[in-house]
Amino acid sequence: MENDQKAGRESLDRVLAFSDGVFAIAITILVLNLDVPPGMSPEELGTHLRGLIPSLASAVLSFAVIGRFWIAHRELLAPVRRVGNPGLWLNLLVLGPIVLIPAASQLMAEYGGETVAVVLYALTIAAAGLAELACWSYFSRGLPRERVLRTSADIAIVPAFFLLSVPVAFASPLLAPFCWLGAAIPAGALSSRLRT
Amino acid sequence: MENDQKAGRESLDRVLAFSDGVFAIAITILVLNLDVPPGMSPEELGTHLRGLIPSLASAVLSFAVIGRFWIAHRELLAPVRRVGNPGLWLNLLVLGPIVLIPAASQLMAEYGGETVAVVLYALTIAAAGLAELACWSYFSRGLPRERVLRTSADIAIVPAFFLLSVPVAFASPLLAPFCWLGAAIPAGALSSRLRT
Amino acid sequence: MENDQKAGRESLDRVLAFSDGVFAIAITILVLNLDVPPGMSPEELGTHLRGLIPSLASAVLSFAVIGRFWIAHRELLAPVRRVGNPGLWLNLLVLGPIVLIPAASQLMAEYGGETVAVVLYALTIAAAGLAELACWSYFSRGLPRERVLRTSADIAIVPAFFLLSVPVAFASPLLAPFCWLGAAIPAGALSSRLRT
Amino acid sequence: MENDQKAGRESLDRVLAFSDGVFAIAITILVLNLDVPPGMSPEELGTHLRGLIPSLASAVLSFAVIGRFWIAHRELLAPVRRVGNPGLWLNLLVLGPIVLIPAASQLMAEYGGETVAVVLYALTIAAAGLAELACWSYFSRGLPRERVLRTSADIAIVPAFFLLSVPVAFASPLLAPFCWLGAAIPAGALSSRLRT
Repeated sequence: MENDQKAGRESLDRVLAFSDGVFAIAITILVLNLDVPPGMSPEELGTHLRGLIPSLASAVLSFAVIGRFWIAHRELLAPVRRVGNPGLWLNLLVLGPIVLIPAASQLMAEYGGETVAVVLYALTIAAAGLAELACWSYFSRGLPRERVLRTSADIAIVPAFFLLSVPVAFASPLLAPFCWLGAAIPAGALSSRLRT
Repeated sequence: MENDQKAGRESLDRVLAFSDGVFAIAITILVLNLDVPPGMSPEELGTHLRGLIPSLASAVLSFAVIGRFWIAHRELLAPVRRVGNPGLWLNLLVLGPIVLIPAASQLMAEYGGETVAVVLYALTIAAAGLAELACWSYFSRGLPRERVLRTSADIAIVPAFFLLSVPVAFASPLLAPFCWLGAAIPAGALSSRLRT
Repeated sequence: MENDQKAGRESLDRVLAFSDGVFAIAITILVLNLDVPPGMSPEELGTHLRGLIPSLASAVLSFAVIGRFWIAHRELLAPVRRVGNPGLWLNLLVLGPIVLIPAASQLMAEYGGETVAVVLYALTIAAAGLAELACWSYFSRGLPRERVLRTSADIAIVPAFFLLSVPVAFASPLLAPFCWLGAAIPAGALSSRLRT
Repeated sequence: MENDQKAGRESLDRVLAFSDGVFAIAITILVLNLDVPPGMSPEELGTHLRGLIPSLASAVLSFAVIGRFWIAHRELLAPVRRVGNPGLWLNLLVLGPIVLIPAASQLMAEYGGETVAVVLYALTIAAAGLAELACWSYFSRGLPRERVLRTSADIAIVPAFFLLSVPVAFASPLLAPFCWLGAAIPAGALSSRLRT
């Protein structure tokens, strides 16, 4: 029995180590495209660096988004003691869109004015959020309802505002990013307050 | 004695941390080639993005394959308490083909219609599976026969279907990927049922 | 209560694993730009390799800087038992400039003679140091004053000298790197001695 | 006192996690240069793939070398209970040449027939081995002499044969790699036997 518990803990340890690794790599390679070709004149360098500002802005946004997903992922797995095959695959379902974020972020950096870039970026983020929601609804079985709802609201706020931005992007791609600010709303705390 | 056990555990911890790191990096850099050159017109961008669909499909497939190998790797090392030099090198033998998967996946993405690309991809995956099988036959010594067979079947199903696809690829490279679906068969559960 | 302590420890474990991952990746990809194009003649290869010396110097410098930030990060989180949301975001605020260092280091390697490159590099390093200082002032609440001051001095010495180098770089970009040597001063030990 | 021990263990945990991360990334990005440009004809693809064989051979060699350094690194830190600042910097001194190996390996892959490439590769590997030796002579203080010598021999065999290959490479760069096979000699076991 004790052995079983230990095996359970260890197997969870590896899920956490693997997931933390994926999050850490995804968040670090966000800036890989901030590179500067050699051999430019000082004027060209200045122009090139100014041209990197959208890439930097996009990297900062994606850094915050991945950071938030990682924080949510900690809460997701906090109640878990053992992970079986379905849980492992659900976790991979979360990590899948996460590893796509650096590519989507680069697309967004270079074509932020195009509807297709904004929509693909928003859908990638929304997919990661929805996968975390699916994961949570699986891992939170048996927990107190209050905690389940609170964390669900915290997770759901991100895909909600990123999905909302999709129709907005078809009207105006430059307006869509403003929707994303909504993802910073502390939805869990608000929903707790509303219910009491 | 207790000290020895602790040293044993610690040495295993590092094997797991190192292996999880390698798996996490390999699975994250799968999408490094999904990059988009700057300065295209909206039409060119649309064409380029549609052209990335095979790359994305190949990345999704390789993501699932690496994910499955990682899940198998957890089972592989679950019975291990101490790892000596042969075990360490066997583990490196597993990680070798794993780090090759991103390169093979990119080759597959760009030349999926060529026999040579499909064959090299299938052989890389098969090599990882066979290495896991070798690792398991070493680490599972002394375990109950039922468990050994069950996990062996689970691991062997992947290289079996990827090796099967090699002759198929010589006949038709586009047909070969359909063989790979066989790797999703829950071989361990089936073999347990067959024996009872 | 015991459960709570365990949950607290585990949640800290993930912060450490994630942060160590980010530091490890940032320090390893420093040298990604030391690549050599194929197909050069022996003379061209010699010239090209000599041309990589500034890149190597810049990578060595950045390696030492990230190494020092990582050592400081260990001290930063040593007194922490639980991390709440503000602590998690403060930690991400440290990791943000860390992931920018490889890009800034490449810029420095290729345009070390330009004021703009030196200034951006110095500001990236200074930002990481100031974020660590903010983190420490948050996490060190309640610790003995002597320890707080000692570690603060250790952390602050890095951004102090890198900020100092900014005006110097406007006068002469080639002189600025000499300021950075000041960051190697063991400020914590000195400040302890001064107060006794 | 117990608290101290815990802090000591934790601080070691982070050194291991960080080091394992660096080793894992270095060993995984070895194959980043095995990429295949899009849009080649089947004949060009065949030629290109055959042209990658030296790169693959070089990656396999470097994989084995990094693997061996990682195995030695485990032994290096096994006796350590606490790490102070000198130990942390010595460990970074080991990791420095490790992160250079992927770049040196790429150079070797593309210019294996040039003395300069072979010499730089051999010196990078030798530097990592000598740094591990320095680390071990620091961390092994107080251990039984037999164990110190055995592990020293195990570590020293790698830089010995790679340094030996440097003069050989000046005579013939194609002969030098044969010296490297000597690094596979189980020097620790041999030296134990010789002394008894």
